[in-house]
Amino acid sequence: MAGETKRTDSKALYDVVGIGNAIVDVISHEDEKFLDSHNLIKDSMALIDTETAVSLYNEMSPTVQSSGGSAANTMSGVASLGGKAAYIGKIRDDHLGEFFAHDVNAAGVHFEVKPASEGLPTARSMIIVTPDGSRTMNTYLGISTNLSKDDLDVHLLENAQILYCEGYIWDIETTKDTIRSAIAIAKGANRTISFTLSDSFCVSRHKDEWIDLIQGQVDILFGNEDEIKELSGYGTLTEAAQWIQGKVKVACLTLAERGSIIVTEDEIIGVGAKAVSQVIDSTGAGDLYASGFLFGYARGLDLKICGELASIAAAEIITHTGARPLVPLKSLIESEFRN
Amino acid sequence: MAGETKRTDSKALYDVVGIGNAIVDVISHEDEKFLDSHNLIKDSMALIDTETAVSLYNEMSPTVQSSGGSAANTMSGVASLGGKAAYIGKIRDDHLGEFFAHDVNAAGVHFEVKPASEGLPTARSMIIVTPDGSRTMNTYLGISTNLSKDDLDVHLLENAQILYCEGYIWDIETTKDTIRSAIAIAKGANRTISFTLSDSFCVSRHKDEWIDLIQGQVDILFGNEDEIKELSGYGTLTEAAQWIQGKVKVACLTLAERGSIIVTEDEIIGVGAKAVSQVIDSTGAGDLYASGFLFGYARGLDLKICGELASIAAAEIITHTGARPLVPLKSLIESEFRN
Repeated sequence: MAGETKRTDSKALYDVVGIGNAIVDVISHEDEKFLDSHNLIKDSMALIDTETAVSLYNEMSPTVQSSGGSAANTMSGVASLGGKAAYIGKIRDDHLGEFFAHDVNAAGVHFEVKPASEGLPTARSMIIVTPDGSRTMNTYLGISTNLSKDDLDVHLLENAQILYCEGYIWDIETTKDTIRSAIAIAKGANRTISFTLSDSFCVSRHKDEWIDLIQGQVDILFGNEDEIKELSGYGTLTEAAQWIQGKVKVACLTLAERGSIIVTEDEIIGVGAKAVSQVIDSTGAGDLYASGFLFGYARGLDLKICGELASIAAAEIITHTGARPLVPLKSLIESEFRN
Repeated sequence: MAGETKRTDSKALYDVVGIGNAIVDVISHEDEKFLDSHNLIKDSMALIDTETAVSLYNEMSPTVQSSGGSAANTMSGVASLGGKAAYIGKIRDDHLGEFFAHDVNAAGVHFEVKPASEGLPTARSMIIVTPDGSRTMNTYLGISTNLSKDDLDVHLLENAQILYCEGYIWDIETTKDTIRSAIAIAKGANRTISFTLSDSFCVSRHKDEWIDLIQGQVDILFGNEDEIKELSGYGTLTEAAQWIQGKVKVACLTLAERGSIIVTEDEIIGVGAKAVSQVIDSTGAGDLYASGFLFGYARGLDLKICGELASIAAAEIITHTGARPLVPLKSLIESEFRN
């Protein structure tokens, strides 16, 4: 069938290429009162300006800095699983930019977008982790908003089996255009397009455009319960799941400790969450879920197995501070499937 | 008795003031082969130059940046326990310097040394954590070596019950002189002097000077088994413990999972290690042990209780990446002593 995307292509240079805001996470652990006193909405992502970034940082407890950025976390996960991953995002030639580039390269992810030599600094997200492991993000986008069509490597986009796009990037007109171009290039090469809804407030800002986008262009959609409810306009998960069914090839709906459901055009598959002894920091749980699923998908595995890989990757990330794996996920998968 | 130090002084402004190299930790998890292929000596601290720092960083896996510096970790621990702590160390007015200052201030530690506006950058230590939780440190000292007598706040040193000095700082002539001055000021005000041996290689570099120093000037000495063996020249812990007995008022000898022994002029007290489910990163274990002991000592508690506080603080730090507590140690102590 003309225009049908190929699910696997062993000749492709990459399994997945991700595109998103290149961000360094600045993480502190605070009590619930901190959220109230700073009017922060738990578990959501708010965009903040320089002034707010400075004043919030000054009030935060001791922090840990760890490279982040939703799609970059996902690509690091794909590489950690043994996959071939590439990343597109914008940094400055400053300390945080170097730190970001080091970490994505060190993870084995191809990343060659030229750092900006002037303009805003590298993006950072002040992440408040509360005792239950929830994370509340306050993001200063900085130079990441300058990602332009000129930063797109056409050869790379044409030669990755899956393009993975971050919903967050929709907040800025420039980067939104960049994503649309990236999708057009990948689709022109019959590649699979995947997209994450990122955040329920982000969904509410772009709902109408996204409903058009996913029906026309997206093969694999990722979202959590709040996000899919917000997008669909339905109040229950079952209604929202029914609504999305058939609009995309595969929708992966993550349900935190309740696991996830994978909704295809003709079936729904339930996937259990992998138990962890304690959730330390849930930052990156959705990102790493996506990495497991996309890696499995690019390798032609059953959707159920893709979901299990996703659960294992997500479980590793929530047991420590930071959104990048501390151990090679490949080794976790191997030991899991040996048992 | 003239010249006798006062153990507790409720009018003192601070419980402890620490002096050391102000360092940001750059931490990655690697396998054992990484140590071999880079000729790194496990569990030790090596001083490296700029070139080695850059090449090592380039080979490291994705990193987490967390404020460190042995004495700064200890002071953050004292503050986290509810104590009044101050810190003296040198940073540059660069990104890592701001990060360091934020974290020590955010921990509630008084820190007012003026950042240098020129010269070397803020110090950083590349820390390789292996699967057993051991840490191998590669430190680029940068501007921390410029800590001079002019950076000493005499009023502060005279008004803290305990001065805590880091052995690491002995590696540079300038900072060694600074420490000697700090000790003289504190002793002039009848304050307690404490000192950590820091690292067995560091001990071997300064053995003779340190034996003189601790006998003449140090009240409380901290060291692990390798360090006290190296200092004493004895091959067994019992011989080394006997050697140190009487040379200082109190020697706290830490023995990793075997707990610690507290050697006073007339007795030896054994303290158990607090069990943890998994050692993720032992960075800061000795530093946090010292924080618990010093906090208890400044508050006039029994030495046995001081040791237990030390064990609780050390146990928290080894269960996660980084050498600063993620939860208020005060709350851990309260729940421990309620049970």
